[in-house]
Amino acid sequence: MTLPAGYRYSSVYAGIRKIEKDDLVLIVSDTPASAAAVFTTNLVQAAPVVLSRANLQASGGKARAILINAGNANCSTRTGERVAAGTSRAAAKLLGIPANQLLPSSTGVIGVELNPALIVDALPALVQGLSADRFQDAANAIMTTDLVAKTSTAEVELSGGPVRIAGMTKGSGMIQPGMATTLGYIMTDAAIAPADCARLLKAANETSYSRISVDGDMSTNDTLVLLANGASGVKLSARDISLFREVLEKVAQELASKIARDGEGANKLITIVVAGAVSDKDAVRIARSIANSPLVKTAIAGSDANWGRIICAAGYSGAKFDPRKVDIDLQGVRVCKGGLAAEFDEPKLKRDLDAQDVSISFRLRGDGKGSARFWTCDFTEGYIRINGSYRT
Amino acid sequence: MTLPAGYRYSSVYAGIRKIEKDDLVLIVSDTPASAAAVFTTNLVQAAPVVLSRANLQASGGKARAILINAGNANCSTRTGERVAAGTSRAAAKLLGIPANQLLPSSTGVIGVELNPALIVDALPALVQGLSADRFQDAANAIMTTDLVAKTSTAEVELSGGPVRIAGMTKGSGMIQPGMATTLGYIMTDAAIAPADCARLLKAANETSYSRISVDGDMSTNDTLVLLANGASGVKLSARDISLFREVLEKVAQELASKIARDGEGANKLITIVVAGAVSDKDAVRIARSIANSPLVKTAIAGSDANWGRIICAAGYSGAKFDPRKVDIDLQGVRVCKGGLAAEFDEPKLKRDLDAQDVSISFRLRGDGKGSARFWTCDFTEGYIRINGSYRT
Repeated sequence: MTLPAGYRYSSVYAGIRKIEKDDLVLIVSDTPASAAAVFTTNLVQAAPVVLSRANLQASGGKARAILINAGNANCSTRTGERVAAGTSRAAAKLLGIPANQLLPSSTGVIGVELNPALIVDALPALVQGLSADRFQDAANAIMTTDLVAKTSTAEVELSGGPVRIAGMTKGSGMIQPGMATTLGYIMTDAAIAPADCARLLKAANETSYSRISVDGDMSTNDTLVLLANGASGVKLSARDISLFREVLEKVAQELASKIARDGEGANKLITIVVAGAVSDKDAVRIARSIANSPLVKTAIAGSDANWGRIICAAGYSGAKFDPRKVDIDLQGVRVCKGGLAAEFDEPKLKRDLDAQDVSISFRLRGDGKGSARFWTCDFTEGYIRINGSYRT
Repeated sequence: MTLPAGYRYSSVYAGIRKIEKDDLVLIVSDTPASAAAVFTTNLVQAAPVVLSRANLQASGGKARAILINAGNANCSTRTGERVAAGTSRAAAKLLGIPANQLLPSSTGVIGVELNPALIVDALPALVQGLSADRFQDAANAIMTTDLVAKTSTAEVELSGGPVRIAGMTKGSGMIQPGMATTLGYIMTDAAIAPADCARLLKAANETSYSRISVDGDMSTNDTLVLLANGASGVKLSARDISLFREVLEKVAQELASKIARDGEGANKLITIVVAGAVSDKDAVRIARSIANSPLVKTAIAGSDANWGRIICAAGYSGAKFDPRKVDIDLQGVRVCKGGLAAEFDEPKLKRDLDAQDVSISFRLRGDGKGSARFWTCDFTEGYIRINGSYRT
């Protein structure tokens, strides 16, 4: 798979995280790219989130580079703003780009001062290492409790020729997006106006990053960025937009569902499909409530076809529906019919639920047009082990 | 401690739960008692919840008996309404009381048909066993995944003389009350008008059962009942009301906090106090968000003073506050001062957090008058073990 043209990547170990594994990443576009981002809606926002938002505003939706550190969230600290601004300025200077065309991101522990010298000292080697083929290194280096690096790539034939999309993302806990969650960066070499970038990213986010949940916690650092540098020489024309939007959505969904699959301690990716709701909004409410229920998630971990917990979680979601019109399928097997227990082969379904991919379908009879797809993971003892001693 | 006069209790094993442990309970007042209840706000409501609500309406807030079964929720089943009505009628007939003066409750698995014959056949022995001193047996028999029986008693001197209050409750999972949670029954021998009963229970519920959370799941069967039979001969006069309300609230809080302490797999009771919020409503929002955060709860399980997760959970609670005005104390030790890390002896605090009682104080500087007290528990691997195979 060819990566989008005109981007270079680099990563080094700056000493921010305790274990020696690259923790500082740079993504550079050779020319100013149209840029858009969605950020956490948490009231408590990390300094890099505040600065990235301001930079996008000041640059009129243009960016040349993204600087990411793992191991420290640079949030709720005395020096947060200074550290974000200082390290961003130093990197921009070294790259010879305007400071407001650099977007900083951080992920890691909250409330611990981030030493800017660690980053500034590592910058020369980081810039030195920039290369078009270090995409995977960058994807590896942004991980925290992630077990696997998460990327997605696509190529799409527009009316002017082919363009490429490549995304990388990280995150496996604190995943409950009211919008974007965790960190995600999608690069394309299509030529797209900044305003279109913003619209396209917002739409893609709505049905991908905004539809996953691991534990219901929403981070202070969530950031999802789209860069479009036009290096393919192919402009996104009006008639290409819906096709491009579709492929971008697929990339975003693949990235997002990989986060859910890699949820802390998770063994299974759970895909929840809700249909027949009064509205899409109600469908999302039902899906999110099922996805966030520890009782549903532990039942799936135990391969237990406990549909009562599913209808119960839907019942407190705030969505309106008639419980007697609910059909629930697990792995394609009808377990609840009209709100009541259906006949099914329980030992066989239990074996089917041992799979790494579990599907929950929640359908309301009637003519409701609201539907939603949502991803989450099962809830295992591993989650507790990982999170019981994250700081220490 | 003397129990309220004029009540008798009984329990038998009717064969509803798999293990042979009493699963059917009867509470009887010798005379018609004023009665009030709060129920789950889940859209999916168990048949006994629907019937109890209708009975209270029909009887004008009078009740003689409560019939409770454990082991089956009698919810989302084909025969639920018939089973609730039939078994209630049979019990009322045997007791010689109007059918609408009996309040049924069920707790257990959802979506499995409840065989009414098991209950009807056990009723004679159940009624036979009624005795004023079997309060504790009844409290034992309503348990499901509870590890300990939960009761609270109090005596209060009203202007006309002493009256007694005694409550029993069950619940250790699926605990996220938008109102009452799980099952709770509070009996008093004070003479109180039905309308006052309803007001007093509503107020007590607001600051007790509505302020606990184990896993954020809200059951389909939650019921909290107050009976006042007047057997003490002491009437609740207007000037006694605030005193009585206070004692009733203490009893309800003791019952509710015992549920949180006995949360599935929990080792610790966490008491969260929020102060300085814009309103009590905002304070509850912050407290509930902290209480429901799996990241906070796993950190406490690991005795990790991870206050970043606490401020982060408050940040997505929906409450408005300035993150730079937040002070957080763990076990009385300031860990976050003005939204930033405070200096503290980490190894010592880690040892302090090993206690079975953990306190989290979240205070906003300024003149906000909103405050709230909330109870939850830590989140351990035991929760996963219990819930991974509940049905099978």
